Amino acid sequence: MDNFEFLNPTKIIFGRGTENQVGREVKKFSSSCLLHYGGGSIRKSGLYDRVVASLKEAGVRFAELGGVQPNPRVGLVREGIELCRKHKLEFVLAVGGGSVIDSAKAIAVGVPYTGDVWDFFTGKLLPETKLPVGSILTIPAAGSEASHSCVITNDEGMLKRPLNMEMNRPSFAIMNPELTFSLPPYQTACGVSDIMAHVMERYFTLTPKVDFTDRLCEATLKTVIGNAPIVLEKPDDYDARAEIMWASTIAHNNLLSTGRIGDFGSHLIEHELSGINDVAHGAGLAVVFPAWMKYVQKKMLPRFVQFAVRVWNVEQWFDDPERTAREGIRRLEEFFVRIGMPVRLGEIGLGESHLDEIVRKTLIGRGETVGNVIKLGREDIRGVLKLAL
Amino acid sequence: MDNFEFLNPTKIIFGRGTENQVGREVKKFSSSCLLHYGGGSIRKSGLYDRVVASLKEAGVRFAELGGVQPNPRVGLVREGIELCRKHKLEFVLAVGGGSVIDSAKAIAVGVPYTGDVWDFFTGKLLPETKLPVGSILTIPAAGSEASHSCVITNDEGMLKRPLNMEMNRPSFAIMNPELTFSLPPYQTACGVSDIMAHVMERYFTLTPKVDFTDRLCEATLKTVIGNAPIVLEKPDDYDARAEIMWASTIAHNNLLSTGRIGDFGSHLIEHELSGINDVAHGAGLAVVFPAWMKYVQKKMLPRFVQFAVRVWNVEQWFDDPERTAREGIRRLEEFFVRIGMPVRLGEIGLGESHLDEIVRKTLIGRGETVGNVIKLGREDIRGVLKLAL
Repeated sequence: MDNFEFLNPTKIIFGRGTENQVGREVKKFSSSCLLHYGGGSIRKSGLYDRVVASLKEAGVRFAELGGVQPNPRVGLVREGIELCRKHKLEFVLAVGGGSVIDSAKAIAVGVPYTGDVWDFFTGKLLPETKLPVGSILTIPAAGSEASHSCVITNDEGMLKRPLNMEMNRPSFAIMNPELTFSLPPYQTACGVSDIMAHVMERYFTLTPKVDFTDRLCEATLKTVIGNAPIVLEKPDDYDARAEIMWASTIAHNNLLSTGRIGDFGSHLIEHELSGINDVAHGAGLAVVFPAWMKYVQKKMLPRFVQFAVRVWNVEQWFDDPERTAREGIRRLEEFFVRIGMPVRLGEIGLGESHLDEIVRKTLIGRGETVGNVIKLGREDIRGVLKLAL
Repeated sequence: MDNFEFLNPTKIIFGRGTENQVGREVKKFSSSCLLHYGGGSIRKSGLYDRVVASLKEAGVRFAELGGVQPNPRVGLVREGIELCRKHKLEFVLAVGGGSVIDSAKAIAVGVPYTGDVWDFFTGKLLPETKLPVGSILTIPAAGSEASHSCVITNDEGMLKRPLNMEMNRPSFAIMNPELTFSLPPYQTACGVSDIMAHVMERYFTLTPKVDFTDRLCEATLKTVIGNAPIVLEKPDDYDARAEIMWASTIAHNNLLSTGRIGDFGSHLIEHELSGINDVAHGAGLAVVFPAWMKYVQKKMLPRFVQFAVRVWNVEQWFDDPERTAREGIRRLEEFFVRIGMPVRLGEIGLGESHLDEIVRKTLIGRGETVGNVIKLGREDIRGVLKLAL
């Protein structure tokens, strides 16, 4: 086990009706906020009205900014920053999924900074201070509600860049599983795929002797695997929605990274798939992850056997670990198919002719390789993608 | 799943050599501290010298107070409060196990209060403010390093009383598994028993549909069960010590309580065993917990079957769930015996003649019953204890 530091200062407020506490929670930090959201779904569902009522009741004045897109844009972030300055707002409240929360995080670091917020995403400098951020989560997937991550896309050249730092962690996350009942099956499944990828990126580590976090990862995966088919069949199953929602936070708040180094190479490859034809992140991951596994499995065969046996209850072939490992990967693919995810590039409109572009873009600004289990160079990335054809 | 709130603001600093950062960490809160510890073991091991060096290097002035006993006494807490006031110390640093940390927590709430600190433990009133607390943990067991609990004993009448509140959570916990190499086998095993009890008290819940936290509990138990025999055989096995140490924190920081209500009845019964002949808390739990399980198992048979199958890999008798459940409890007892814990009252010097006293004391100030799975009245507590004869 490696040395580590871990602190998750995000207060989780979980359960039915909790969105009605939002005014009170914001008020602990400020009497004013930017109310930030995406499309119109929160108006249709009535959530918008409940949030506004709660803010008013608590005496929190606010301005609002909707319109966050998937792959949130720096353009809107700049608008949010201006709004906060103009109205002297001192808190950013995100109502939505990972994109809205990431956009809120970017606004929060941008307000007290005199230069352009994109400077933080090019690595020019790090923020010294920020506004506090809170969220009402409506899509369990990205884990942004309690994570240190923030990914923003620059409209010029569609550059997608992260700003990962402990200061990014929100002050609170309000999580009511009922708010996810209306998520369509495809979006639900994309979330499940994203959650599983977050766990598996941490699970497949070269760090030896990390028994506890291995088992916590397996617990999280099994929970999601068991509950995903339930919510797809019965979208308003509160308990199954709740399991997935809580698992999505733990999957990415770095508890599962403690003492180990993961491998996020497949995530970076997926970003470039999404970039080419706007495929949903979770769907792209369902294509890339099993291919990545097939490519690297010989490097860490015992771990892949453990994955097969413990996560998928594969009956172990003791004399044939490779067969056992392969069966684990096959079960993962089978699961993705069952929940309606693609598992081949062709299913998301990509083919051999796109490989060069994906390989090239994956490595831009990242040197010669990505990933950790195998440091994937140009030929390796192509090798992974060929396994997804 | 029930609604819940969860926030653990304790920064975990984990790994080899981390105790040398202590000065820097305290300095983030204050330039002065009370250095609080137990017996002489931290001097013998050289830890004391490293802590003092680190505090001096960071420019933190300090006064010190050693002598914390197991079942930490309010008398010493009062001394600590006086010392802090006299030297105007603004941080309490605990170096030791759960008793030292609990004592530090009590000092921390007592310093800014004008009355007697025991008022907080009688429930007369709640603290409004406190000094920040940090720790260097040397015994993985109580989980106090990141928990909201604090238990103090009043020398007059040996009353043991808790003060549980979110404000109790320490600011940081420094956890170097190397510092636990020198723990004797019996104390190591008592810690293991305490950790397992913390998890099982949460695991055996009447709250339905708590799949994720069930699995996190099982992951924690399996980690401890797998690694305990290793550290007993090889006390300086860093990785196995590390697994147990990190598991001890997660077992009691309330992550495993999220969305569910546990049953701490067996813990309360055990406190009175300890009170009678000063048996170690972990050893008493190894006696009481399996007896409690035998007493309540019929109330929640499916959960006991799950415990047997998932935690102990019991081959399930599908047509005989009671037999499966019993086998799980038998395995737990067998495990306790294997690590050198007692599992019968006789082994800790208690017998039928003590039952009345234990029953009576368990209920003092607690009304008619303790516990939750079955609300244990006078006859039930006696019934549990008889199963431990």
